[in-house]
Amino acid sequence: MTEVQTQIRTESDLIGAVELPADVYYGVNTVRAAENFQLSSTRVEQFPELIEALAIIKHAAAAANRDVGALDETIASAIIAAAKDVAVGQLHDQFILDMIQGGAGTSTNMNANEVIANRGLEHMGLAKGDYDALHPLNHVNMGQSTNDVYPTALKLALHKMTGTLLESLEGLKNALRAKAKEFHTTVKMGRTQMQIAVPMTLGQEFAAWAVMLERAETGLKRVRFDLLELNLGGTAIGTGINANPGYRERAIEYLREITGLTNISSAPDLIAATADTQIFVDLSGALKRVGLIMSKIANDLRLLSSGPSGGFGEINLPARQAGSSIMPGKVNPVIAEAVNQVAYQVAGHDAAISMAVEAGQLELNPFEPIMARGLFDSIGILSNAATMFADKCIVGITANEQLMRDVVEGSAGLATVFSPVVGYKAATALAVEATKTGAKVTDLAVEKGLLTSAQVEELINEALAV
Amino acid sequence: MTEVQTQIRTESDLIGAVELPADVYYGVNTVRAAENFQLSSTRVEQFPELIEALAIIKHAAAAANRDVGALDETIASAIIAAAKDVAVGQLHDQFILDMIQGGAGTSTNMNANEVIANRGLEHMGLAKGDYDALHPLNHVNMGQSTNDVYPTALKLALHKMTGTLLESLEGLKNALRAKAKEFHTTVKMGRTQMQIAVPMTLGQEFAAWAVMLERAETGLKRVRFDLLELNLGGTAIGTGINANPGYRERAIEYLREITGLTNISSAPDLIAATADTQIFVDLSGALKRVGLIMSKIANDLRLLSSGPSGGFGEINLPARQAGSSIMPGKVNPVIAEAVNQVAYQVAGHDAAISMAVEAGQLELNPFEPIMARGLFDSIGILSNAATMFADKCIVGITANEQLMRDVVEGSAGLATVFSPVVGYKAATALAVEATKTGAKVTDLAVEKGLLTSAQVEELINEALAV
Amino acid sequence: MTEVQTQIRTESDLIGAVELPADVYYGVNTVRAAENFQLSSTRVEQFPELIEALAIIKHAAAAANRDVGALDETIASAIIAAAKDVAVGQLHDQFILDMIQGGAGTSTNMNANEVIANRGLEHMGLAKGDYDALHPLNHVNMGQSTNDVYPTALKLALHKMTGTLLESLEGLKNALRAKAKEFHTTVKMGRTQMQIAVPMTLGQEFAAWAVMLERAETGLKRVRFDLLELNLGGTAIGTGINANPGYRERAIEYLREITGLTNISSAPDLIAATADTQIFVDLSGALKRVGLIMSKIANDLRLLSSGPSGGFGEINLPARQAGSSIMPGKVNPVIAEAVNQVAYQVAGHDAAISMAVEAGQLELNPFEPIMARGLFDSIGILSNAATMFADKCIVGITANEQLMRDVVEGSAGLATVFSPVVGYKAATALAVEATKTGAKVTDLAVEKGLLTSAQVEELINEALAV
Amino acid sequence: MTEVQTQIRTESDLIGAVELPADVYYGVNTVRAAENFQLSSTRVEQFPELIEALAIIKHAAAAANRDVGALDETIASAIIAAAKDVAVGQLHDQFILDMIQGGAGTSTNMNANEVIANRGLEHMGLAKGDYDALHPLNHVNMGQSTNDVYPTALKLALHKMTGTLLESLEGLKNALRAKAKEFHTTVKMGRTQMQIAVPMTLGQEFAAWAVMLERAETGLKRVRFDLLELNLGGTAIGTGINANPGYRERAIEYLREITGLTNISSAPDLIAATADTQIFVDLSGALKRVGLIMSKIANDLRLLSSGPSGGFGEINLPARQAGSSIMPGKVNPVIAEAVNQVAYQVAGHDAAISMAVEAGQLELNPFEPIMARGLFDSIGILSNAATMFADKCIVGITANEQLMRDVVEGSAGLATVFSPVVGYKAATALAVEATKTGAKVTDLAVEKGLLTSAQVEELINEALAV
Repeated sequence: MTEVQTQIRTESDLIGAVELPADVYYGVNTVRAAENFQLSSTRVEQFPELIEALAIIKHAAAAANRDVGALDETIASAIIAAAKDVAVGQLHDQFILDMIQGGAGTSTNMNANEVIANRGLEHMGLAKGDYDALHPLNHVNMGQSTNDVYPTALKLALHKMTGTLLESLEGLKNALRAKAKEFHTTVKMGRTQMQIAVPMTLGQEFAAWAVMLERAETGLKRVRFDLLELNLGGTAIGTGINANPGYRERAIEYLREITGLTNISSAPDLIAATADTQIFVDLSGALKRVGLIMSKIANDLRLLSSGPSGGFGEINLPARQAGSSIMPGKVNPVIAEAVNQVAYQVAGHDAAISMAVEAGQLELNPFEPIMARGLFDSIGILSNAATMFADKCIVGITANEQLMRDVVEGSAGLATVFSPVVGYKAATALAVEATKTGAKVTDLAVEKGLLTSAQVEELINEALAV
Repeated sequence: MTEVQTQIRTESDLIGAVELPADVYYGVNTVRAAENFQLSSTRVEQFPELIEALAIIKHAAAAANRDVGALDETIASAIIAAAKDVAVGQLHDQFILDMIQGGAGTSTNMNANEVIANRGLEHMGLAKGDYDALHPLNHVNMGQSTNDVYPTALKLALHKMTGTLLESLEGLKNALRAKAKEFHTTVKMGRTQMQIAVPMTLGQEFAAWAVMLERAETGLKRVRFDLLELNLGGTAIGTGINANPGYRERAIEYLREITGLTNISSAPDLIAATADTQIFVDLSGALKRVGLIMSKIANDLRLLSSGPSGGFGEINLPARQAGSSIMPGKVNPVIAEAVNQVAYQVAGHDAAISMAVEAGQLELNPFEPIMARGLFDSIGILSNAATMFADKCIVGITANEQLMRDVVEGSAGLATVFSPVVGYKAATALAVEATKTGAKVTDLAVEKGLLTSAQVEELINEALAV
Repeated sequence: MTEVQTQIRTESDLIGAVELPADVYYGVNTVRAAENFQLSSTRVEQFPELIEALAIIKHAAAAANRDVGALDETIASAIIAAAKDVAVGQLHDQFILDMIQGGAGTSTNMNANEVIANRGLEHMGLAKGDYDALHPLNHVNMGQSTNDVYPTALKLALHKMTGTLLESLEGLKNALRAKAKEFHTTVKMGRTQMQIAVPMTLGQEFAAWAVMLERAETGLKRVRFDLLELNLGGTAIGTGINANPGYRERAIEYLREITGLTNISSAPDLIAATADTQIFVDLSGALKRVGLIMSKIANDLRLLSSGPSGGFGEINLPARQAGSSIMPGKVNPVIAEAVNQVAYQVAGHDAAISMAVEAGQLELNPFEPIMARGLFDSIGILSNAATMFADKCIVGITANEQLMRDVVEGSAGLATVFSPVVGYKAATALAVEATKTGAKVTDLAVEKGLLTSAQVEELINEALAV
Repeated sequence: MTEVQTQIRTESDLIGAVELPADVYYGVNTVRAAENFQLSSTRVEQFPELIEALAIIKHAAAAANRDVGALDETIASAIIAAAKDVAVGQLHDQFILDMIQGGAGTSTNMNANEVIANRGLEHMGLAKGDYDALHPLNHVNMGQSTNDVYPTALKLALHKMTGTLLESLEGLKNALRAKAKEFHTTVKMGRTQMQIAVPMTLGQEFAAWAVMLERAETGLKRVRFDLLELNLGGTAIGTGINANPGYRERAIEYLREITGLTNISSAPDLIAATADTQIFVDLSGALKRVGLIMSKIANDLRLLSSGPSGGFGEINLPARQAGSSIMPGKVNPVIAEAVNQVAYQVAGHDAAISMAVEAGQLELNPFEPIMARGLFDSIGILSNAATMFADKCIVGITANEQLMRDVVEGSAGLATVFSPVVGYKAATALAVEATKTGAKVTDLAVEKGLLTSAQVEELINEALAV
C-alpha cells in the first residue's frame, strides 16, 4: 500500500535540530522565529517592498564580496540569481514571519538568508539544506549583520512606499486644485471659529487646502531623501567587523546601480547610524502631518456639507452609498470620515514609534520591527486614503452658490468691510444691531448716515473682489 | 563703619560643604537640588496640596516612631509642631525646587525633612542647622525613604485635588441638567455624521452630555478611591528596611486620623507598590476621559451655535468678550475653545505619563516627578475649565426654537418616520425626491398615495413625542 | 459550444443598480462599501468574535420583533436560522469589508443584514436577492440602526476577546508566581535607579511583578464589566425611533439568554449611550496599563539578564533562537523585546482611539471602526504576547545565585543596614570610603569601632531575612 | 478725613462698561479675557520672547501704515515709541493673561494693542484710555487681525527660543565630543540587545551620541528656517481685508529690518497660511526628536554607570547630590533621570499639539494658544536640560578602563572575530562552550586546533584596532 510521504529535512542551530518540510526554502532559524512569534496578523509577506529590498541587499552584498575576492564566483552567482528571483516576487510566500518580532529584525534577515541560500542551491543543482556548498550565514550573509541589513532594507522599502504615497497625494492635490479653479468665482463668507467672518471664494478654500497638502508633502520629501543614507557595511555595531576591506563601498555602489537611486549614500558615522532610529520617528512625524492635514480637509468638508437643511449646506459631497440602515435616503460623508480615521491611526502609530525610538539601548535599537509595522500601515492607509479621497469625494463635489451668496449679503460680517471707514466702535454697533434685529448692516450703515449707498456698494465690491 | 551682614550657616553632604543664608529653613540637600535642576517654571511651592501631604506624612511618622519607642518625645513633639506649621501653609516659600527633578522625588523629600527639622529646632529654642538635636534624616525621615514618602504624598495630594475637580464637574453637570430641563420640550432634528437624522429635543442633548460627564466622573471616582492605598512603611524598596516593628501600622493609622480619610489602607505587597506607578497612568487616563468628554461637549456647542447665519444656529452661547480685533461685533465661542485646548493638554500629559510609567526599572520608578507635574497640571486646568465652562458658557445658553422647528418640518429626515409603514425602499425614494426638489416628504407621501394625511400627522406626532 | 457562465444578480440602492455574482450572500450595500473602502489589510472576516456578535444581535432582534408581533413567524425563523449559521462561522468569508470604513460601521451592519437575509432566503427555499420575501433592512434590521447594532456588537466582541486576554494574563501571572516560589530564598541586592540599594530576594521581585500584573488585570476586569451595558433598542440616535414597544426589553433579554451573559443591561440614557464612546478609550487605557506593566517586566528581565559578563547577569532567560546572523553563539532576550514592542503598539492605539473619541459630533461618533480596529489589534497582540512571555521566557528562567550573593556581601549598600544604629552621616562616610577603596563596609564598621562584629552579623542577618 | 482713593477709569466693549485701575496699561478686552480664562499658572508675561515679538510686529505695522499714508505721523511715532518700550521689557507685567485662552490668541493681541495704545498716549502726553487720540484697534491694530499677528508673533518668538536651544545643544554636543576624544583609545565590548557583542571604544560611543544629537539638531534647524515664513498682512482670513495696498510688503520689510532676520518672507498663499498650523506640529516633532535622542543618551549612561557592583559599572557619573534619604552614600544618576523626564514631557506636548492642529476648522485654527504653551514649555525644558546634562553630568564622567578591558578579554563575544576564519557554526560551538564552562573562547579555539595562538592574537588585535 502506498502512502503519501511528506519529505522532510533536518536543520539545526545552537538549540538543537528541527525537522521541516523538505520543499520549503526557509530554514531552522525561520522555523524558530515562526514558533516564537505568533503575535499579530501582520506578516512580512504582505510587504513585497521589504522582501524586494532584502533581496537587493543580498544581491549587492554578494556582488561586492565577489569583487573583493571574499566570495567564490559560483556561489556569488547563485546568490545573485536567487536574490533576483526573490526580488521579482517568486518566493514571497516563504516570508512567513510575523512583523512583530524580538531581535531587531534578525529573524527576517535569517529568513531572507535561508530562502536565498536554498534557492541558490537549486540554481547550483544542489539539494535544499546543503549548506556546506552555499551557507545562509557564511555566504549569503557574508560581511553583513541584521543590524545593517534590516534598517537598510527598511529604508529602501520605505523609500519606495513613500514614492507611492507621494503619487497618491499628487492626485489628491490635483483634485483640490481642479475644484479651486472650478469655484474660483464662487463668493462666500469665510469663517473663523465657526462664525461668519469676511468674504472669500470657495475656490480660495480649495486652493488653500492644496497648498497645505503640498507643504506636508514637502516635509515628507525631505525625510524621504534622508532615507537613502544607509548603514550597510557597518555590520554588528557599525565598526564594520567581519566585513572585508572594500566591501562596503562596492556594496553601496551596487545598491545604487540595482535600484537606480543615485542618491544612496553611506552614513558618515556607522556606529551612530546603527543605534540611531530617529529617521523613523522623523518619517512618522512627516506622515502624521500628512494625515492631520488630510483630516483637517475632511473635517472642513464635512462641515461645509453639513445639513443639508439646518447646517452649513454650502457644498454637496457625492453620494457613495446608502448612509443608514434605518434612515432612508440619508447620505453621509463616509469618505471624509474614513480619511479622519486614517489620520488618527497614523497619529497613534507615531506615538508608538516615539516610544520605540526612545527605548533602544547602547549600540542597537531592537525595536525596529514595530517601527516598521507602524510605518508600513501608516503609509499604506494614507496612500489608499488619498486616492479614495480624491476619486470618491473631491472630484464629485458641487457647490450651492446661491445659498453662499445669500449668506454673504445678509451677513453682519460685512461690518468689517466698513470698519476702516467708520471705525471699529461704530462698526461694532452696526454688527450688534444687525444681529439682534435681523436687519442688514448695509441698510443700517446708510440709515444711520455713516455711509452713502454708493460707498457701501464700493466697499462691498472691493471686498468681494477677493 | 557698620555693614549689613548677611548671616550664613554651613551644611555639608557627601560632596562637601555649602554656605546658605542662616535664616532659610531648607538645607544642603535642597541647595544641591536647586542648583542641579533649573529646568521649568513649575515649582513645588505652587502645589500646597503636595506640601501639606508631605507635612502630614512627617507628622504621622514622628507620632508613630514615638509610639513605638524609636523617637524621643521632645523631638517628636518638635517635628509634629513643625509639620503642622508647614501643613497650614506657613513655610510654602521654602519649597523652592523645580517639580522636574531626577531621583524619584528625593530632593522634595529632603526639602521637607530639612524645613521641618529647622522649624522643629526653632520650636525647641535651638538654632537652625543644629542637626545633632533634631536631624532631617535621622529624626524627621526616621523609618522612611523617599520611595515610600513621595508616592504617598503624591497620592494624598492627588486625592485632594481630584476632590476639587469632582466638585467642579458637579457644577458643570448641574448646569447641563438645568438646561436639559429648560429645553425639555424644544423639538429639533438630531444629527448623525453632521447630517439631519431624526427628531429629538434640545433638552435630551443637554441631558445626554450630563450623563456622559457623569460616566467620566464615575471612572475618576474609582481611581480616586485607589489612590488611598499607600506604601508608607515600605521604605527604600518595600521591604520595610530600617522601619521599626509596629511603625508602619501606626503611621497609617495616624494618616487616617489626621486626614480623616478612613479608607486609607496599606498596600498588600509593598515591594510591588514601591515600583509600580500604574495608579498614575490610571488616574491620567481617567482625567483624559473627563477632558475628552468636555471637549466633545464643547465641539457640539460650537457646532450648534455656528453661524449665526450660514451655520447651525440652533443655540446662542453667551457673549463673553469681543471676538476679534478686526471684525467688529464678532462674538466667538471662546469658552468652548478654551475647553478644547485643556482637553488636548490633558491627553498630551497622558502620553507623557505613559512613557514615564513604562520606563521605571526594577525596584523603583524614578520618574514620578514628571508624572506629578503632568497630573497636577491636568487636574488644575480641568477643574478651572469645568467651572469656567459652566459659569461662563452653559448657564447663559439660549435656544432659537423657531429655527429648530422649521428644520424639523422641512426635513427629509422624516422619511425615517414613514419607513416602518411604507418600507425602506419607498421611504428612500421619498427622501431622495424631497432633497432633490425641495418638496416636503410629508407632502410627497400623501401625493403618492403612500400615506393619508391623517397617517402622516399621526406618525409625525409620535416621532415628535420624543 | 458551451461556456462557463458566471451567474449574476442585480441589486440596487439610492445610487443605482449593481451586478454581483449570484452566489454571494452579501448585497449591494456591501458591494458599495467594498468599492469605497480599500484602505488597509485588516478585514472584518479576521474577527470572528465581531461577526458572531452581529449574528447574535440579529437573532435576538428577530426573536424580539416576533414576540411583539412585528415580524412574521416564518421570516423570524429564517432570520434566526441564518443568524445561527453565521454565528457558528459558516459564512465568515462573506464579511469582506475593510475594518476602516466611514459611517460608524453602517457598512458592516449592512453586510450582516444582507448575508443573513440571503442565507435566510435559502432556508426559506427562495433565491438570493428575493428581498420582498425577506428584506435585509425591513426584516433583518427591523427596529435597529447601525448606531445601536454596531456598538453593541463591538462590546460583545470585546467582552469575549478580553476574556481570552484575561486567561493569557492568568497564565503569565501564574508563571511569575511559580518563579517567585522557586526563588523565594535567593537573596540579592534590590536596586533603585539602577544602583545597588538594599537586600531582598529574587522571589520577591517575581512576586511583585505578579502583583502589578494583577492590578492591571483588575482594571481591565472593571471595564470589561462595563462593556455589558448596551444601547441596543436606541436605534438611530437613542430615542428608539422605529422600534416597537416592548422590543428593546425582549431583545436585551434574548441577548442575555443567547450569550449566557446575565450581566447584560440596557444603558439608562440611550441618547448618551449612542453618542458616547468613552467606554472604548476606557478599555484602551486598561489595555495600555496591561501593556505598560508587561513591558516594565520585560525591561527588568532584560536588565537582570544583561551581560552575561559585563552586565547584571543575575538571571538567564532561556535561549529561544540564534540571536545574531553575524555573532555566533549570541543569545538575545528576543521574547522580552517582542513584549516591549507589543506594549508600544498598544500605547499607540490608545493615542489614536483618544483622538477618535474626542472627534465624534452630536448624536453619533462615526469613528467607531478605527476604535474597533485598534482595540482588536491591541487585545490580540497582548493575549498572544502574554502567552508567549509565560511559555517561552518566564518558565525557563534560571538564577545565578552565587553571583547575587557575592554582590550582596560586597555591597556598600549594607551601610543602610547600619544607619539606624550609627546615624546617616557616619553610615554615609562608611559607604563613601567602601566605594572609593574597595573595602567592605562590614569590615570598615568594625575597624572604626562603630559596631562590633557581633552587631554587624546581627544587623546583616536581620536585613537578609527579607 | 482723607481716604486713599484708587483711581479708576472706565472702558467699554460690546458687552458693556468695565472699571479698571487708572494706571494699568491694559484695557477692557484684557480685563474680559483675564476674567474669562483663569485656567493655568502659565502666564503670557513668563515669555518675554512672545511679548517682544508682538511689540516688534506693532512697530513694523505702524511704520508700514505710516509709509502708505494710512496712519498719521504723530500717532505712528507714539505707537513705535511705545512698542519699543514693550520690546525692551518695560511693561511685561501688563501681559497678565493665561497662555490658555479661547479665540486663537485674540486676547493676547488685544492685550498688546491696549498696552501699546496707552503707553503711546503717555508718550503723546495724553491720559490712558483717551482712545480717540490713539486707539488700540483703529490705530495700533490697523491693517491687522489676531489671525495674522498672533501666529507671526509665535513664529518670531519660537525662532528666538529655538536659537537658545540650539546653543544649549551645541554645548551638549561639544561635551560629548570632548569625552569622545578623551576616551578614544578605551577599548570595551559593544552591546546589542544589552548583551555583549563585539569590541569598540568608549570614545566611539560618545562620538556616536554626538552624531545622533547633531542629526536631531539638523532637523530642528530645518523647521526653524520655515518659521520665518510669515502670514502678516493676511489679516482675518488671509485675503488681506482692511489692509492698505503696499502695507504688507512694507510691514514684512520692517520686520526684517527690526529683527535683523533677512530670511523673513511672506507666505505665498496667505489663506492657507492663516488656517494651517502644521509648522507647529512640525516644530514639535523636531523637538520630540531632540528629546528622544537626549533620553536615549541618558538611558545609555544610566546603564553604563549602573552598579557600581552588580551592574555594568563601565563609567562613573559625577556625584551631584546625596541620592537617598535612607541609603547613606548612595549616588544616583539624577541628572540623566531629569533628562529622561524632560523628553517624556516633550513627547506628551507633541501628542497635545497634534490634536490641536487637526482640530482647526475652516479659515482659522483657534487652538494656537495651547500649541504655544506646549512648544514654549518644550523648548524651555529642553534648553535647560541640555545645559544641565552637559555641565552637571557629561563633563564629569570618568571611565573604569580596567573593568572594560577585562570584559573584552573574557568575552565569548570574541567568537565573532573568529567566525570569518572558522565559520559561523564552529564559532557558535566555541561561544556556547565558553559561556557554559567559563573558559575563554581564545583558549578553546587553540585547544581545539581551530586556530593557532598567533592567529588568535592577530585576529584579536585587528578587532581591537576598532
